[in-house]
Amino acid sequence: MSKMMCADIIKALQPIVARYEAEQVGVLIDAALECDVLTSRFPTLRMEVSEERKSLEKVEQIWDFLFAQGITRRGLLICIGGGVITDIGGFAAATYKRGIDYINIPTTLLAMIDASSGGKTGINYHGLKNSVGCFAPPVETLISPQWLKTLPAAQWLSGFGEMLKTGLISQPALWHQLLQYDLEVMDSEALMPLIEQCVACKESIVAADPKETGPRKVLNFGHTFGHALEELSLDAMPHGYAVVYGLIAELYLSVTNLGCPKEPLQQLTQLMLHYYGRPQCKCSEREQLVRLMQQDKKNERTAEINCTLIREVGMPVINQVITPAEALEALEYLFSL
Amino acid sequence: MSKMMCADIIKALQPIVARYEAEQVGVLIDAALECDVLTSRFPTLRMEVSEERKSLEKVEQIWDFLFAQGITRRGLLICIGGGVITDIGGFAAATYKRGIDYINIPTTLLAMIDASSGGKTGINYHGLKNSVGCFAPPVETLISPQWLKTLPAAQWLSGFGEMLKTGLISQPALWHQLLQYDLEVMDSEALMPLIEQCVACKESIVAADPKETGPRKVLNFGHTFGHALEELSLDAMPHGYAVVYGLIAELYLSVTNLGCPKEPLQQLTQLMLHYYGRPQCKCSEREQLVRLMQQDKKNERTAEINCTLIREVGMPVINQVITPAEALEALEYLFSL
Repeated sequence: MSKMMCADIIKALQPIVARYEAEQVGVLIDAALECDVLTSRFPTLRMEVSEERKSLEKVEQIWDFLFAQGITRRGLLICIGGGVITDIGGFAAATYKRGIDYINIPTTLLAMIDASSGGKTGINYHGLKNSVGCFAPPVETLISPQWLKTLPAAQWLSGFGEMLKTGLISQPALWHQLLQYDLEVMDSEALMPLIEQCVACKESIVAADPKETGPRKVLNFGHTFGHALEELSLDAMPHGYAVVYGLIAELYLSVTNLGCPKEPLQQLTQLMLHYYGRPQCKCSEREQLVRLMQQDKKNERTAEINCTLIREVGMPVINQVITPAEALEALEYLFSL
Repeated sequence: MSKMMCADIIKALQPIVARYEAEQVGVLIDAALECDVLTSRFPTLRMEVSEERKSLEKVEQIWDFLFAQGITRRGLLICIGGGVITDIGGFAAATYKRGIDYINIPTTLLAMIDASSGGKTGINYHGLKNSVGCFAPPVETLISPQWLKTLPAAQWLSGFGEMLKTGLISQPALWHQLLQYDLEVMDSEALMPLIEQCVACKESIVAADPKETGPRKVLNFGHTFGHALEELSLDAMPHGYAVVYGLIAELYLSVTNLGCPKEPLQQLTQLMLHYYGRPQCKCSEREQLVRLMQQDKKNERTAEINCTLIREVGMPVINQVITPAEALEALEYLFSL
């Protein structure tokens, strides 16, 4: 797997696609998107997707498409879309004839930063997010600012949430660059060097632990609380928003449990209040959030709550078990802002 | 992955299972089998299986079982049964929460030799054998002669067919030991050292090429024709019988195309006529067999027929493309015996 920033995706694709027989290449694209230069050239499956429909049924549709095209084990699937497309496309490719190659062309900032690299593929099963899937890296991920120019603001902010997380777990310099990035303007070209750093950071972490047996868990910072908030909202809350709120709760615990300085918590709180808005949650729902955290698939033991926290910016610590009372206290803090 | 011969499976299992929390272990067992000492100790899913029902639906049943038991990523699935159980159990385990550990306890000779090691998992999809699946080795495969004592003769012969293939591709000494084994008596203890050699041979081949990009294809000797015969029979023909017939066709091509000595072909023909019986096939079906071979998922290019052949016993050669006319000639030979 490698990742390249490319202003001209087609030009970047050419040498990669040349490794495959022309009739062995298929395209999976979000039905809401256009990419004529590829879809006019290769057989294409247009798919309407959403987080609620990230299902086994969609994977079967992709398998059916690949069979219908006579794709062999030497085939290639090009997945164009957001994280739902790259997750289900990657899973379908990883299991079709025991695995064919696939390329990701993420079209949202969130997918560029998060879903499209790292090799995690999967579907939601029985309402549980990504509870079925496998680890199978794409042969290539092509990132281009062209898609960002038309991306709605909420999706910019969602992707930026994952970038903020990356800054907090990797290095103070990146964290400060992110704080200085002007979210009012949302200049996609200016964001590219920051995307590049975030992706490089994720890739080096994943390379050291592709199957998340340990070190890779640093990437879960903000996600124990974030996933619970996302589930409680029935996915109405964009993932990166949930991560920002989760980061605040987990920065709070980083301060109380690991003595992390308060500054990053204050900085992120400012940014959250200015751009993301306060999270809404009824008091009666807090206990439910704790229960959702206890069921998180990242847990190694039944019913414990396992978080990644930080000692300071750039110093993450995995496998921090927190009590339900501590979880409630962090939620109390988050919802009182 | 390792494989051990163990007279006492429970004793062999103990140190492995001890690595997991007790409530994190589940058992999948063929409903036709009993293994009280395990099923009384761990939550168990009994499953009625057959080649026709080696389907996605069964995989969903296993996922549902694992979810219902609250199995986390640190869980373990113990699969007890023939190749269908180890293939679908392995696939379910490999995709549940992006992969949990599993152990195979093969109960047929065929599964001991073939399905339960090598890491190939999968299901039949749209009638195409193993067309969906992934590569995911079990953490352990436990082989015991106890299951063989009650195995029907046809299943012995089926498993022995894969052993014969292993002899032909590995070494003359093993091939001769197999020819000397008394198939009238079917002594399971006497077979164990031969099973051990076959498994060790397969494991060393797989270790060099886990995802079948090249060298592992030597294991496909006999399988291009074998799979087509199996499909034509709608799976009425046991896999190992199909392999024996496939070996004869492919030994014939080894003689004509690669100058292989005729002796192994003659030896296998004798053994086939004595124990397996002639394969039945209408003349009109021969063209259909060729078409099935052209659709084989092992093919790298559309419609070509790709075989593994041998130059002599112990010297396999992969990626031998044969013409439809040559395929028909080999079938002619096989059906004229």
